[in-house]
Amino acid sequence: MSDELFTTIEGGITAPQGFAGAAVCCGIKPQSLDLMVLASDRPAAAAVTVTTNAFRAAPTFVTQEHTADGQAQAIVCNSGNANAATGQQGMDNARKMAVLAAEQLGVDCLDVIVCSTGGIGQQLPMDNIESGIAEAAGQLTREDPESIARAIMTTDTFPKTVAVQFPVGDTTVKMAGIAKGAGMICPDMATMLCFITTDLAIAPGILRASLQQAVATSFNCITVDGCMSTNDTVAILANGAAGNAQLESAESAGYKEFRAALGYVTGELARMIGRDGEGATKFVEIRVSGASSWEQARGIARHVANYDLVKTSLFAEDFEWGWMAAAMGAADPELDPKQVTIRCAGITGWSHGEPVSFDEAQAKSAMQADEILIEFELGIGDAQATVWTCDLTYDYIKWTVDSG
Amino acid sequence: MSDELFTTIEGGITAPQGFAGAAVCCGIKPQSLDLMVLASDRPAAAAVTVTTNAFRAAPTFVTQEHTADGQAQAIVCNSGNANAATGQQGMDNARKMAVLAAEQLGVDCLDVIVCSTGGIGQQLPMDNIESGIAEAAGQLTREDPESIARAIMTTDTFPKTVAVQFPVGDTTVKMAGIAKGAGMICPDMATMLCFITTDLAIAPGILRASLQQAVATSFNCITVDGCMSTNDTVAILANGAAGNAQLESAESAGYKEFRAALGYVTGELARMIGRDGEGATKFVEIRVSGASSWEQARGIARHVANYDLVKTSLFAEDFEWGWMAAAMGAADPELDPKQVTIRCAGITGWSHGEPVSFDEAQAKSAMQADEILIEFELGIGDAQATVWTCDLTYDYIKWTVDSG
Repeated sequence: MSDELFTTIEGGITAPQGFAGAAVCCGIKPQSLDLMVLASDRPAAAAVTVTTNAFRAAPTFVTQEHTADGQAQAIVCNSGNANAATGQQGMDNARKMAVLAAEQLGVDCLDVIVCSTGGIGQQLPMDNIESGIAEAAGQLTREDPESIARAIMTTDTFPKTVAVQFPVGDTTVKMAGIAKGAGMICPDMATMLCFITTDLAIAPGILRASLQQAVATSFNCITVDGCMSTNDTVAILANGAAGNAQLESAESAGYKEFRAALGYVTGELARMIGRDGEGATKFVEIRVSGASSWEQARGIARHVANYDLVKTSLFAEDFEWGWMAAAMGAADPELDPKQVTIRCAGITGWSHGEPVSFDEAQAKSAMQADEILIEFELGIGDAQATVWTCDLTYDYIKWTVDSG
Repeated sequence: MSDELFTTIEGGITAPQGFAGAAVCCGIKPQSLDLMVLASDRPAAAAVTVTTNAFRAAPTFVTQEHTADGQAQAIVCNSGNANAATGQQGMDNARKMAVLAAEQLGVDCLDVIVCSTGGIGQQLPMDNIESGIAEAAGQLTREDPESIARAIMTTDTFPKTVAVQFPVGDTTVKMAGIAKGAGMICPDMATMLCFITTDLAIAPGILRASLQQAVATSFNCITVDGCMSTNDTVAILANGAAGNAQLESAESAGYKEFRAALGYVTGELARMIGRDGEGATKFVEIRVSGASSWEQARGIARHVANYDLVKTSLFAEDFEWGWMAAAMGAADPELDPKQVTIRCAGITGWSHGEPVSFDEAQAKSAMQADEILIEFELGIGDAQATVWTCDLTYDYIKWTVDSG
């Protein structure tokens, strides 16, 4: 579209200039890709956000340490084992992953981002990790981005990739992201991860601020089961290979395009995670408008998104606006039902203090859609927020039972 | 036991002197008891706590108004329809229920407590309600307490009743309670209700304070699915028929026995609700100790109790202490894992910063128990709290689907 600030492109996570990667099967999981290395040909500006969980995993500490200076050059990530709740040995192993990757890639150990995803409470099989890193580092390429996206999957049913390009002055800049998620809810997964590459030249401070803003309205607005993981990590590397004049602040030429592209990449990946929720049959968008603040709107939307009764009724395809009202009322006791409107799948159930009659057959039909939009208008102010989630199904429980 | 401050007795909700009641089937639900009237032969000191849900039901407003003066004499309650999210007509209907009960019972309309439980968003069938109240009021008795307990049930699988007696000076005082619950989660239920009768003479102020304290550590410490209802109500009537010297304060003779009895009655009823959770196969007690405050301990315990991943793993009978760690870490990002101990079913999974090895077969066997105790020791202070919940099962989802 002519009025877009960016356009989507092919090429996956290695589309931006100067990035290459490789994925291998090193034996943590049976016969599937379980380790990947992604590297820039030069040091890059770097920013990360990690989970606030008190029991967060060892690699999240190492990653924070290694990006504290705003610079990194490579990412190493395994699936099949989260290296979480693993004590001192787990911390030693996470550091060793960085050392091994640095040696094989010829980069500074302190410029390596380390991530793990999978089961909690088991030590990493370091022999497999070591041989896997050596193998992957020896075959870096820009030609197989899908394998890199697949190597970080656990219970995900499809790889999640987005790539765009946007202009910064006369320069064309590329940005790409991969993610995994599928619910915080299965023994061999328990994490949301996202890695973003771009050949943009940008100062670390503004990169960090931009990433935090983008995460707040994307990954922090999805919820599958309300279960915060020990390993959640979003990382971005900006290596400047595009050759643009470096972005120094929000006033720099091209910043608007960069933020639009980053918002799109993180938003699309977040929605893909929502669509791929554990056992989900429906993708659900919850929009709260007319709030006093974005925080109020997002708080209510998240509460409704995590309300098991609402999630299960969506699976049942019932038009249960009353439960949505109960969920909303539980989220914020100060709400005034007389000012509130509740709509689901385009049908109004409650408006300004009174239930609204509706056509039962029409409601039943509307609830059969694969994507359901729930709308709350609070009647207080102008702020709004959107949260994405999925329904709660038999298969959500089956995942856990089968994995026991 | 000789060292108990109270003893359990027979006689149900009408065991205390001066109370009588009756239950009828007035046609809201097909062929089951769906309306009950419970009355004291004299005005009683009264206290209530109701849900803080912003979308709370019409009868909760009426009940608060009618007990604001600390006095009430009767309770009228229907099941099968919650009279919630029903607008102005719902409010008119709730008031009319009080008027009808007052006329039939010959008590002051402002001394009638009104409750409803069932589906949300439908108007009450007032013809059925009116005939039901007349029928029930005409056959008050002390001989059929079980029918009264059954008339407030929705998806509960068993009626919930506790009765005790305790000494106040030379006087024997009786107290009884009934409750319904079974999860906040089925179309024709969505509520926790509890009614307590006692022939104790007590001043309304100290009665109210005592009830609030008892509810905080009983009903407010159970959670089936984390879904706060629109109708939750706990009410106590103390009619003084026992003839004791009225309790005026926490220093009055007999107050200690009264509080112990009230704590037992509310605690037992709360635990019965936990055991009867929607589709539940296990009763789960979560004890958090070593906290800086009771609020911190209860907050963490409640978060873990509502963590779907933990609840489902309990159904699967897996010893997933790692998910318990993740749930706890999500509840309070400031926790220090190095100070924490995690135990489940008597087996330690994590202690002071390190995973603890355990016997797999022993763990598997321990997780098959019908009752599971999860223990967290935070290593911060001396405060503790206990929360009760149940597992998350296929049948939880089936209830909702079947009712669509």
